[in-house]
Order: sequence, then structure tokens, then C-alpha cells
Amino acid sequence: MHGLLTDLYELTMSAGYHQAGKSEEKATFELSIRRLPQKRNFVIVAGLAQVVEYLLEVRFTGEDVAYLRTLPQLARAPTGFFERLREFHFTGDLFAVPEGTPLFAGEPVLNVRAPLIEAQIPETYVLSSIAYQTLVATKAARIVETAGGRGVVEFGTRRAHSPQAGVLAGRAACIGGCIGTSNTLAGMRYEIPVYGTAAHSWVLAFEDESRAFRELQKLLGEATIYIVDTYDTLEGTRKAAALGHPLWGIRLDSGDLLELSRAARRILDEAGLTGARIMASGDLNEYKIRQLVEAGAPIDAFGVGTELATSADAPSLGVVYKLVELDTNGTRRFTAKRTEDKITLPGAKQVFRYSGHDLIACSWECPSCGEGAEPAEALLRPVLLGGRLVEPLPGATEARHRAAAALRKLPAACRRLDSPEPYRIEHSRALLDLAGQARQTPPVR
Amino acid sequence: MHGLLTDLYELTMSAGYHQAGKSEEKATFELSIRRLPQKRNFVIVAGLAQVVEYLLEVRFTGEDVAYLRTLPQLARAPTGFFERLREFHFTGDLFAVPEGTPLFAGEPVLNVRAPLIEAQIPETYVLSSIAYQTLVATKAARIVETAGGRGVVEFGTRRAHSPQAGVLAGRAACIGGCIGTSNTLAGMRYEIPVYGTAAHSWVLAFEDESRAFRELQKLLGEATIYIVDTYDTLEGTRKAAALGHPLWGIRLDSGDLLELSRAARRILDEAGLTGARIMASGDLNEYKIRQLVEAGAPIDAFGVGTELATSADAPSLGVVYKLVELDTNGTRRFTAKRTEDKITLPGAKQVFRYSGHDLIACSWECPSCGEGAEPAEALLRPVLLGGRLVEPLPGATEARHRAAAALRKLPAACRRLDSPEPYRIEHSRALLDLAGQARQTPPVR
Repeated sequence: MHGLLTDLYELTMSAGYHQAGKSEEKATFELSIRRLPQKRNFVIVAGLAQVVEYLLEVRFTGEDVAYLRTLPQLARAPTGFFERLREFHFTGDLFAVPEGTPLFAGEPVLNVRAPLIEAQIPETYVLSSIAYQTLVATKAARIVETAGGRGVVEFGTRRAHSPQAGVLAGRAACIGGCIGTSNTLAGMRYEIPVYGTAAHSWVLAFEDESRAFRELQKLLGEATIYIVDTYDTLEGTRKAAALGHPLWGIRLDSGDLLELSRAARRILDEAGLTGARIMASGDLNEYKIRQLVEAGAPIDAFGVGTELATSADAPSLGVVYKLVELDTNGTRRFTAKRTEDKITLPGAKQVFRYSGHDLIACSWECPSCGEGAEPAEALLRPVLLGGRLVEPLPGATEARHRAAAALRKLPAACRRLDSPEPYRIEHSRALLDLAGQARQTPPVR
Repeated sequence: MHGLLTDLYELTMSAGYHQAGKSEEKATFELSIRRLPQKRNFVIVAGLAQVVEYLLEVRFTGEDVAYLRTLPQLARAPTGFFERLREFHFTGDLFAVPEGTPLFAGEPVLNVRAPLIEAQIPETYVLSSIAYQTLVATKAARIVETAGGRGVVEFGTRRAHSPQAGVLAGRAACIGGCIGTSNTLAGMRYEIPVYGTAAHSWVLAFEDESRAFRELQKLLGEATIYIVDTYDTLEGTRKAAALGHPLWGIRLDSGDLLELSRAARRILDEAGLTGARIMASGDLNEYKIRQLVEAGAPIDAFGVGTELATSADAPSLGVVYKLVELDTNGTRRFTAKRTEDKITLPGAKQVFRYSGHDLIACSWECPSCGEGAEPAEALLRPVLLGGRLVEPLPGATEARHRAAAALRKLPAACRRLDSPEPYRIEHSRALLDLAGQARQTPPVR
């Protein structure tokens, strides 16, 4: 993992911490969701596996350091700083909410506790890993719920923001509930199902559509999905139907999907292919899928690409990574930004999930301990301690099961697309007291 | 470059081409912009360098092929296909519009001409490379134009869709006109300027804001930018001003940027720091920057992150990669999809750029040849021939100069944010004839 894959200011600050003798002070940074996008009422957390991979592997090569030494911003940096970078590796602790967990605005996703320099430099990579996969997993959960049991496959690599984003979109979409992805590398790397048969270019490559279909059937057998809309959708469906078994079904990729799916269904049924299925794709999202499902379109599966892999109606997530605690010369300070529109809460936190609401508390509190206390799940768990993995991380499939189970427990009113009800989030008395102290105490001048 | 970083259907189709004896037929695929997003009137092409890097390096390892052999979709694929993958490398031609060129809806960005299998498999990677960087370069061009000469720095890695997207965003933003990026790896890899000083965590890490500022000044000297809004923006500005020279200036990252910049300017001027500059950041985009500029806000530079690196108001670009020609047994066919809403034009094409309009023609035409013909620039140029680079590609900085020069030549009415005028695009007679033939001739049945 490339240490330079970070914002330069993480490195200038680190040089400055070194200069000021602060680089090894124990710091706690918190990654939290400051606010949700307008059209989201919850998120499904994803991307933790990539954060852990980064923290375990991040290094600075000699070439990296040589480059940094050429930068004007680091011209006065102490030599010891560059030596520190050459031996840089993450020795701290990571507490995090497991992938596949639903979270809400204001809740922490993870805490990094490490020497200040080791906690500061990862900021950029960690934010971008969590934010993107969480967006895609969340969008997938919305689409999958709307599809009402019909399979949804992620198709979006070509429109994802970079090839790597395509691979991660496949992973995150599966965590959010998709049955698979078109991205082959995501399939291999994350052990998730991959889907793919043929595009229009397949049909165009043959002089004759029927010949193209016969060749596909020969290759794919029971997995054959004919793409029928290269020339004329219903004519294409008739040619597919004429080939009989074996087949999985057909794919509609353009036009009026409701009308075409009904007409195609009739053609398939009249040919005795009542078991043949219809997949639909083409600029779909949860709203278009809802229309089709509510109208009773005979569609058995959906392929969703662009809108899912770019989270098109909410392409960014307001995640922040803030210093919340710092131990200087044996004194722990609880820190928070407090200007205007971007106030944060100090201190490391824990989220306790009760049946129907969450409580955000200080990390040392245990509100569900003691006799008669309402039982709750503590969402943040140790992942890395002293730079080492506590136990192997769950894979994408396990995260997907977690998400599905957790979503079933969320009130339907919280999950619906239109005017969802906010989920109830409370803050502990101790946390509010700590925040009040941090607000009232001016920094020493 | 990982061969599996592609949609599975590229590989199932390739297996099928091999099965049908078509995998080595010479094919031409065209990547074009089917339509522009609602809020875009042009794009700045970017991402070609990554396409070329991919085509030169794409391979399938033994492990890749072993994985593919486990997939049900490839269970019947001929053994020769897997052997073909093991020796796969790109031997074809690539013609492309140089990075930094403005293009419009319907125009081709590049043509790949190669054995069918070698042209099909790159589809996914090529689309995702061009689409994303083009979105960011375009967004940057809009922001930079609105900033009216004030420097714009790209800050968006943390909100980009994956860490790789952050690196590519830095590159593409510079092509679109940004003066630099916060992404250190982009700086090293693409030889573009990097910017970065300190975040709020820097200020929070010290017990005293003034001490934090002094340490920063010691480290950065003339490059010092104080982030002044951790506790109270104007109080922070006063503390910064009290430190005097050396400094570059201050950064405002929250609150009412117009009012705060005016008040901060007064504080700096009253301290005799008339040369100190003000940078503004915080969820900015071209519309907010226009408001600030039009109101005369004394802001000298802008940092733009989320909205730029996600192209937030247009997070996807309708690029497609279509088979337009195929040579089968010595006969060249011109191919086009012609169903409903997704009609394409057949044949390899060239774009001729005249003063004030473009002509899209067949690749063999030369409308600007001959005496008295109006001179035009042919935009698509040979980049790879027989799998080899024709000449070294221009870097990001050269592409940035190309974009700036080309944008100056575009009519202002085409570039404005509100109700821009469409650019005039014509099609040659020969191309329209070819399209008419492809539409009228039903495929052989």
C-alpha cells in the first residue's frame, strides 16, 4: 500500500508534529457520518476490509521519501521525520462497526487510536474507502428492497469512478444485498457470484441474429440469456424462443420495459418456455424498479449499473475523521471543532443498539451493564490491537447476511423510499457533559 | 494490469467468438459520448493515458485462468480459449482524441481496431477510465472558468469513489485547469503540483491555537496557510495576523465565506499583511464560487473537493463502446444497434474541427483536403499501431495547456453555466448514407 496515497497535508502536519515533539502522542481519531444525503435515511457500512488491508500494509519507499524531499512544503521538515516515514507502519488500535451494519447520521463508524502521526496519515485513504463502499452498499439495499425478492445484479464497472471503484462497487453492492456482480475481479477477489452472458456487440458480430443466439446457447446452455433488443426487441424474443431449451431467459435493455416484458412473456409462454425468465436493465434505479414492480411487470431479475455504482442521486457521503482525544504528557484532552456549521463531539464513543433506538455514549460507559438494564449490542468492536488483527474479518458474504438480518429488524417506516421516519438516536448524559465542557472551555491561550 | 478487471460478459463473449471461429476477425469498436449530462454543454476528454497503459500491459495470469475455469458460464468454453487468454496481449491499433480536447454529444473519443477478442475484453476498463476522468476534467474546467483567474486546487480524494479515483481525480482536475491537487501520489506520478498545509486536527492537537500557528509557520515559512475556523474564525485570523511574516495567508473552511472573507481581509490589512492571501474551501462548486466572485469576495484561491472529485451534479457520463466494423472472411460489415432509444452510427469515424463547428465523417474521408477546402483539425490521431506506442503521450500538464487553449477558442455562449448555446455538429453525407444503409438493410436471417 502506497503511503503517498494521501492528502499532502497529512504529511505536512505529520512533519510538524515531529518538529513539535508531538508525533508519538497517543491520539484517537473518529470517523463518523456527519450527515446523511437528502435521499438517505440510513446507511449500510462497508469498506472496513480495505481500511484494515491499508493499515496492515501502508509503507513509504525510498522513492516516496525522495519525492517528498523535493516539495517546498517539506523543505524545512526535520530529517528525523523522513527517517520516521521510512520505518512507518501502523502500531495502533482500530475499533469499528462491522461491515453490513445499518448506521445513522451522527454515529461513529470507527476509531483509530495510535501515535498521532500513525493516526493522521491514514485519514484520506480510510475516508475514501468507507465513504464509497458505504454509498454503494446503501444504494444496493434500497434497490434490493424495492425489487421485492427479484434478484438484483450489479453491472456498473464501466460507469464507476475508476476501474478500482468498479471492483469495490461489486463488493459493496453484494454487501447491500445484490446477488452478484458483473465484475470478474471482484468475483475472484471477494468470493462473490459473477454474472455475464453477452452484449449487443455479440449480436452485431454475427451476420444473423439467430446464428448469434444459437452460438450463445451452445456456449452457455442453461445459463443462456439472450439480449434481444439489438434490432427489434420482440422479433429478437421470437428468435430466442424458437431455439427452445436450454436457456435461462432473455434480457431487455431498452425501450418501455413494462410493455416489452409483458409482450415478451407472452411470446415465451406461447413457445412453451414458461420457465424462461426475463431480466431487465438499462439506467434502472429503485424508483423505476418500484414502478415496474407495482405495475406487475413480469420481470424476474434486474441488472443495475450506473445508478448503483455511482450512487447517482447521492454521490457523496458526509463522513469526517476528527481528532477526539489526545494524550499529551500524561494528560488526556478531549477535543472538538466548534465553529459554526461543523461542530463535532469530543471523545472516543460507543454506539449501543437497543431494540428500536440507538444510544451514543462515551467509550468507557456500559449502559447495558448491571441488573435490569435493557440489553443492547455494542456496535464498535476491536479489529486491530497493537497493529495486529484480532481475528479474521468477515468476508463480503457474511457482511451481506448481517445487513439483511439488520435491515429486517429496522422499522419499515425507516426503510421506505418516500418520507421515511427518522430513527431514534440518543446521547448519553456523560457524552453531553463532555461536549458541554469542550464547548465552554476556551483553549488555553 | 489485471485481465479480470472487466465485466464477465466480455470474457463469455470472447469464449463464444473463439468457439465460433470469429475471435481473430478484425473488429473496430468506437467509444463515443452518447449524450451529455443535463448540466454539461461540452466535456474535456481525459483518461487516455490510463487506457494506453492498460492496453500495453493487460495480461491473464495462470491464477486468473484457473478462476475462470471454475465459472459455470465458461464450463463449456473450448480449451483453446483459455490458452488464448494466457498469451493475450493487445496487438491492435488505437486512434484517439488527445487529452484536454473539448468534445460534444455524439462524438467519438477513440477507436480500437484489433482482433475481435482483443478489442472486446478492454471495453469495461476503457470506458471506466475515460468516463471518470472526463467528468472530473470537465467539472474542473467549469469551476476554473468561474473562478476567473483565481487558483483552484483539487481537494477531493477523501470523497472520491475509491482511493484510485482520488489519484485520478487529481490528474483529471489539473487537465481541466486546476493549479494542483492535494493528492500526493498524483503529484509524484503525474508530475503535477501538490498543495497541503494543515487541517483542524493540527489546531486541535495543540492546547493553544497560537502555538499551533507558530509551529506551522516554523515548518512552512512562506507557504504557511493558517486554517482559522477551528474555534472562532475571526479570532483565529487575529492570532494568525499577530504572527506576521512569513505566511502565504489563511484558509476559511466554514461559515459565510463572503462576510468572513471581508472581515478577515480587514484584519490582515490592519496588521499590515496586505500581501497575505485568503483561500476558501468547504463544499464549494462553480455556482457558489460564481456567487462569491460576483459579490466581490476578497478570496484569492479556492479549494474544491467533494463536488469536483465526484462531479456531484453529473456523476456519470453516457459513454458507450460499440462495434462499428467487422471484417469477416474478407468482407467488411458496418454495424450499428438500431432499437428504440439507443441508436448508434456505424463505421469508424473522424471528427474534423473547423472554426466554430465540427464535422463527424467516415474515417476514410478528408473533407479538408483539396484546394479551397476550409482548413480543419482531424481530432482522432494514431496512438497505438500494431500494439505499439506511436510516440510518447503528452503528460497531464501538456493536456492542461491544450484544454486551456481550446476552451479559449470555444464561443463564450457555449461555455456559460446558464442556458449555454449548443455547439454546431454536422455529419458528412457519406456517414449519413452509411447509417441509412445499416438501418434499411435487415441483418441476414
